[in-house]
Amino acid sequence: MTDRVILREVGLRDGLQLIKSRLNTAIKLSWIRAQAEVGFTEIEVTSFVPISVLPQFADATAVLVDAQKIGNLLPSVLVPNLRGAVMAMDAGARKITFVLSVSDAHNRANVRKSTDDSLAMLRDVLAERDNRQNIKIATALATSFGCSIEGAVPEARVIQIAEILASQGVDEINLADTVGYGDPVQVGRIFKDVRKAVGELPLAAHFHDTRGLGLANVMAALDAGVRRFDSALGGLGGCPFAPGASGNIATEDTVHLFDRLGIDSGVDLGALLKVRHQLAEWLPGEKLEGRLLGAGPADR
Amino acid sequence: MTDRVILREVGLRDGLQLIKSRLNTAIKLSWIRAQAEVGFTEIEVTSFVPISVLPQFADATAVLVDAQKIGNLLPSVLVPNLRGAVMAMDAGARKITFVLSVSDAHNRANVRKSTDDSLAMLRDVLAERDNRQNIKIATALATSFGCSIEGAVPEARVIQIAEILASQGVDEINLADTVGYGDPVQVGRIFKDVRKAVGELPLAAHFHDTRGLGLANVMAALDAGVRRFDSALGGLGGCPFAPGASGNIATEDTVHLFDRLGIDSGVDLGALLKVRHQLAEWLPGEKLEGRLLGAGPADR
Repeated sequence: MTDRVILREVGLRDGLQLIKSRLNTAIKLSWIRAQAEVGFTEIEVTSFVPISVLPQFADATAVLVDAQKIGNLLPSVLVPNLRGAVMAMDAGARKITFVLSVSDAHNRANVRKSTDDSLAMLRDVLAERDNRQNIKIATALATSFGCSIEGAVPEARVIQIAEILASQGVDEINLADTVGYGDPVQVGRIFKDVRKAVGELPLAAHFHDTRGLGLANVMAALDAGVRRFDSALGGLGGCPFAPGASGNIATEDTVHLFDRLGIDSGVDLGALLKVRHQLAEWLPGEKLEGRLLGAGPADR
Repeated sequence: MTDRVILREVGLRDGLQLIKSRLNTAIKLSWIRAQAEVGFTEIEVTSFVPISVLPQFADATAVLVDAQKIGNLLPSVLVPNLRGAVMAMDAGARKITFVLSVSDAHNRANVRKSTDDSLAMLRDVLAERDNRQNIKIATALATSFGCSIEGAVPEARVIQIAEILASQGVDEINLADTVGYGDPVQVGRIFKDVRKAVGELPLAAHFHDTRGLGLANVMAALDAGVRRFDSALGGLGGCPFAPGASGNIATEDTVHLFDRLGIDSGVDLGALLKVRHQLAEWLPGEKLEGRLLGAGPADR
């Protein structure tokens, strides 16, 4: 099928959105360093969003600046708008994920503007990228597989937006199942259609396990040729502005799946499970998901 | 892919093995009736095992006799040996699942004999079937995808035993991932190989979600042509004689998956979720699994 994937940890961004606990900057950096040490080469370390909206990311600049100093790690950050993108660039970001939603209703709930307005703003972000050096702009396309506000999302609209993103010159497109509506057949079909529409542009998949289909959707995306995946340690995650949202696929379960398939994610699963134990200590009282910590890897 | 599957509820058998709670006969029958009413045409209602080993099935005959009276339902039962099979036949069983393991170590732990001795005993069970009328003998092949005692299980041995079962004249082969070691690529490969080995014999899949791969394995089995699946309401289940065993795939999550794929399982998901609420009342204090009850079906 393939011999190599890039698994990006998003627990420090997506994972910290819905929970009540607040991690201080030092713990965030300990977490980032720990995951870099067990083999992660890409970690979404923070979000450059208004502090009034998500105060847990008030230390975004400090986190990013120190994360950039970690060897063999590409720290990426999420931004909802031009202002966040410029702040991230000023802080030295080398990879920035600009988020917009296929569903207009979710885009308005999440970033307070229409999807078309986000697409227009993205042009300014890309122009800013072109004025600087060595910055990649990825785009996260939220609600690509359904929306808990609008319901079904037309697949033709997903393809259309992907084509616009490609023509605007983004460096990566990440299709996100924000609310866990995706099923494996749909996921395979949409990734194949987007691949046809955008040529060789890197594609990534971001799944939430809200209805238990996260890893089945990973398999479908793998089959469709996707080689970049997001996951969150302990199955943390969820968009605060999407009704019914819950956690991402658990990083530890995802690494275990790749191990079973003989696919190299670069991650040492045994060492990762130690970080997973630490995470539970850093977030006392928070409900963590993921099946592997209790079960252990299959022994064979 | 397909338009129809048979989903067999095994919560009343597999599901009651590991938990401490005991359900009385009347509640068991309420549960069976409730699931028949929401569309299940096959339910594994009990296990004819020695009462000294699993006292929760001391009422096996009573449960089976009353379950047989429910319209449009085929109640099946599990048996570990000839004695159990004869008891089940005497109680009027129309479908009996004889369990044996690919792994010799698990077979000894589970039914106190070697796999070859189980295969020899199965011949007597089949002879007894042939002496009577309208009885189907299915075989559950435990540890088909790995064993937590022996580790890896040779795939050639799975195929070999399936061939023996087919030649002996069983009516169905159910490949069981007793300890959740299976991965989707392996599951697809083994089901395809077994299909080639046994011709048109009905095949079924029985997955535990111990490492989060249960529904991904369902997809792989569907792709390989399997049309019969086991699941347990609330993700109950687990073999008491397999170290580290945990629950089956949750029936409600599995029905939701089939619904999303447009595959008819005959089950009314909304009505099933009401039974799922009842189950929590019948089993206070027991940890139930499954993602769908909290999340609700995707709304589109």
